[in-house]
Amino acid sequence: MNFSIVKRIIGYVLVFVAALMALPCIVAVIYQEREGWSFVITAALCLVPGFLFMRKKPENRVFYVKEGFVAVALSWIVMSVMGSLPFLITGTITNPIDALFETVSGFTTTGSSVLSDVETVSKSVLFWRSFTHWIGGMGVLVFLLSLLHMTGGGSHINLMKAESPGPSVSKLVPTVQSTAKILYIIYLAMTVLEVVFLLIGKMPLFDALTITFGTAGTGGFGIKNDSLAGYSPYLQIVVTVFMILFGVNFSAYFLLLRRKVKQAFSMEEVRWYLLIILASIALITLSVRDMYGSVGEAARHAAFQVGSIITTTGYASTDFNLWPEVPRTILVLLMFIGACAGSTGGGIKVSRLVILVKTIKKELHTLLHPSSLKKLKMDGHTLEHETVRAANVFLIAYVLIFSFSVLLVAFDGNDLITNFTAVASALNNIGPGLELVGPMGNFGLFSNGAKLVLIFDMLAGRLEIFPLLLLFVRDTWKKF
Amino acid sequence: MNFSIVKRIIGYVLVFVAALMALPCIVAVIYQEREGWSFVITAALCLVPGFLFMRKKPENRVFYVKEGFVAVALSWIVMSVMGSLPFLITGTITNPIDALFETVSGFTTTGSSVLSDVETVSKSVLFWRSFTHWIGGMGVLVFLLSLLHMTGGGSHINLMKAESPGPSVSKLVPTVQSTAKILYIIYLAMTVLEVVFLLIGKMPLFDALTITFGTAGTGGFGIKNDSLAGYSPYLQIVVTVFMILFGVNFSAYFLLLRRKVKQAFSMEEVRWYLLIILASIALITLSVRDMYGSVGEAARHAAFQVGSIITTTGYASTDFNLWPEVPRTILVLLMFIGACAGSTGGGIKVSRLVILVKTIKKELHTLLHPSSLKKLKMDGHTLEHETVRAANVFLIAYVLIFSFSVLLVAFDGNDLITNFTAVASALNNIGPGLELVGPMGNFGLFSNGAKLVLIFDMLAGRLEIFPLLLLFVRDTWKKF
Repeated sequence: MNFSIVKRIIGYVLVFVAALMALPCIVAVIYQEREGWSFVITAALCLVPGFLFMRKKPENRVFYVKEGFVAVALSWIVMSVMGSLPFLITGTITNPIDALFETVSGFTTTGSSVLSDVETVSKSVLFWRSFTHWIGGMGVLVFLLSLLHMTGGGSHINLMKAESPGPSVSKLVPTVQSTAKILYIIYLAMTVLEVVFLLIGKMPLFDALTITFGTAGTGGFGIKNDSLAGYSPYLQIVVTVFMILFGVNFSAYFLLLRRKVKQAFSMEEVRWYLLIILASIALITLSVRDMYGSVGEAARHAAFQVGSIITTTGYASTDFNLWPEVPRTILVLLMFIGACAGSTGGGIKVSRLVILVKTIKKELHTLLHPSSLKKLKMDGHTLEHETVRAANVFLIAYVLIFSFSVLLVAFDGNDLITNFTAVASALNNIGPGLELVGPMGNFGLFSNGAKLVLIFDMLAGRLEIFPLLLLFVRDTWKKF
Repeated sequence: MNFSIVKRIIGYVLVFVAALMALPCIVAVIYQEREGWSFVITAALCLVPGFLFMRKKPENRVFYVKEGFVAVALSWIVMSVMGSLPFLITGTITNPIDALFETVSGFTTTGSSVLSDVETVSKSVLFWRSFTHWIGGMGVLVFLLSLLHMTGGGSHINLMKAESPGPSVSKLVPTVQSTAKILYIIYLAMTVLEVVFLLIGKMPLFDALTITFGTAGTGGFGIKNDSLAGYSPYLQIVVTVFMILFGVNFSAYFLLLRRKVKQAFSMEEVRWYLLIILASIALITLSVRDMYGSVGEAARHAAFQVGSIITTTGYASTDFNLWPEVPRTILVLLMFIGACAGSTGGGIKVSRLVILVKTIKKELHTLLHPSSLKKLKMDGHTLEHETVRAANVFLIAYVLIFSFSVLLVAFDGNDLITNFTAVASALNNIGPGLELVGPMGNFGLFSNGAKLVLIFDMLAGRLEIFPLLLLFVRDTWKKF
């Protein structure tokens, strides 16, 4: 492992986290909150090691996939630890594990909270909490890649591969840096658009910003105790639409920008994604029709919850824990499916699901026609063997980590649905689960041990398992 | 598809089912039950089409993997339909879907029952019900293979592959027929041994036979309403030991017979199987210690339930649905793991799990050492790429069918744990689940639609998915 370069990347990340503190500071100044100092202190604590790590040019520029994986995993751990300091310094959260849980939940865009009453939390801390979603959604290293040549070499793709969700990472344009720039520009533009639409609906600016951060990153931290249930139907519909839009593969938007409209709409993943959403909304509307005043209202809540869960955002417009079994089961299944690859959403990802279904179809075809050499195709191109293999291996690791986590969390003694959906929620970066961790519950009820398991799951979910697993292999820590 | 040969095999199976009816007939004569006639009628109904199908020699002897899969899938469906007739004719069960459910549950060695009061059922019907476990455990076609040359060619391995559980089928001796014979001889010998041990514990002969059928096939149909809770500790311990023994890969017994003791005990799958059992018993004993009179009693119940669930038998010595969350969660995980390949047990199988874990280890190794060509090994041999691939594909199909089934069953409106564990129980051929389908509950509560889903799952679980899925592909039904 080339540690000198990994150290340098972590240095950049620390300085970047320090720079981010400026935003909640401004909020603190506007609202005249003393909590502003906590961000100044955190920034200072990041800058010192940050500059130390960054200063030294790496003697060795070797940067392979493993260096990318380890750099990303360690960066995310470091920024979560540093990002949790404002919660601790302000006394918003007193237990360090709780503060780490909240920050990891923020950066990984999970949105599960240990706070039972967010309405008493100061504006600047709430702003920071929601802003972690925005930055975690598209990725910290992707952001840095858009600006800097961190590794000094041409191996940026290995960093991007490690941080970007989905079975394969395709560069939109020939260079990684330009790809990262384009992604962030689309991301920023859509964020501004949502804020504008929310302001039109007379939402206060602070609410509009924080809720948009949660939508854009598919995070889901609310600033009200009832999540989004208290906002007007118009505002809920705006959020629904943008949640679904942020769950689309960003390559589709890039194609749209290039005016390749037909190509964008023929992306298999996007079509499946929209089909699953529409089918789920229809089924749920049918089953919850009688719980609301009109079919329209039922459909609005169905659409909101489906959009929120499949994109792994986690906002709620109603307490879906009280819904009947069919909608509850659909939501649990959507938790696992997740959004599109190359979006800010989590979960297994629609494209992986499509690959897995195609694998089964191919298996049946091969059984019937043993001598035929059928290749798996997606969007008209042959899927590389490596992509299919990676999707398979991902599923295995996913199932094993999931099962083991449910067992470990069970030691807290809560009911099976709480444990099962809490782990599903963490590993898929959703936010709420069912029963005790339903949309109106919170994660403060778990022991520190269970929280550490869920912290691991949230990071494993966001980084798609292997970067994090690699930290637990002894060979990783060998110098070469 | 070579249908002429498939038809011939189904003919053999029908005649075989007719022959099996002799046994419950004898029981009916001994207990002077009028129900005996139902078996005579069923036998007659099997013999007519059976002889018709069998008579004609196939014009074409081509017999590939697909013919094996389709022959096995259709044979199992046909024998389940015919095997359900005695329940209907005697009026023990009046709804044909219920009767089919009970019979599929028998042959697939699941052991889930729609009967709420088995103690009122006549002896001969109970005998038939339990005997389906014994014959389904090792396999109907494996039995026929040991006696006959059904296909007229040398492609018997394709039949055995389709019916025998596990990621790969290895012939113990060079010919398939001798392998099938050896397997059935070991099976029969162990069955006799268990009966003897139960008789020593003063269990009535009828009980000893039926309970042994359930243990040997890892089925789990009880002949008392409280399963095995009412029997003495000695009898429960005998059943525990034999459940675990029937879950061991039969290759191990073959090695023991050949006095290759060291080789038998160094089989990786068997070691993992025993390790998982011991660890689970220890953990559960710790958590349920206070619910029983002594640690010994707690350990006895822990061992019984662990042995029953991991081997997918499904007997109960206590109502484990009332246990705390950790033991319940362990049992749910054991449901999925299942027994060893090449045993009579169901589930994902320990060997597949070992292969999957090794795949993850290899992935991490390859990430760190991209140029190394590490091969997956098991028992000292390199695992064939095909075996690993098949294990991956199995997991995908398994997860997809599982998820889809839970959704379909949810339409009945029962709680999530009931639905989840009912499907887990069906797909892994276990028997009981948790909550409404706990060891003291029964499956009669489900609608006909949900029962059909569970019937599909039981068959898919026993035949390891692909033979059954193949029936739903249009190309399968094309003549060539």
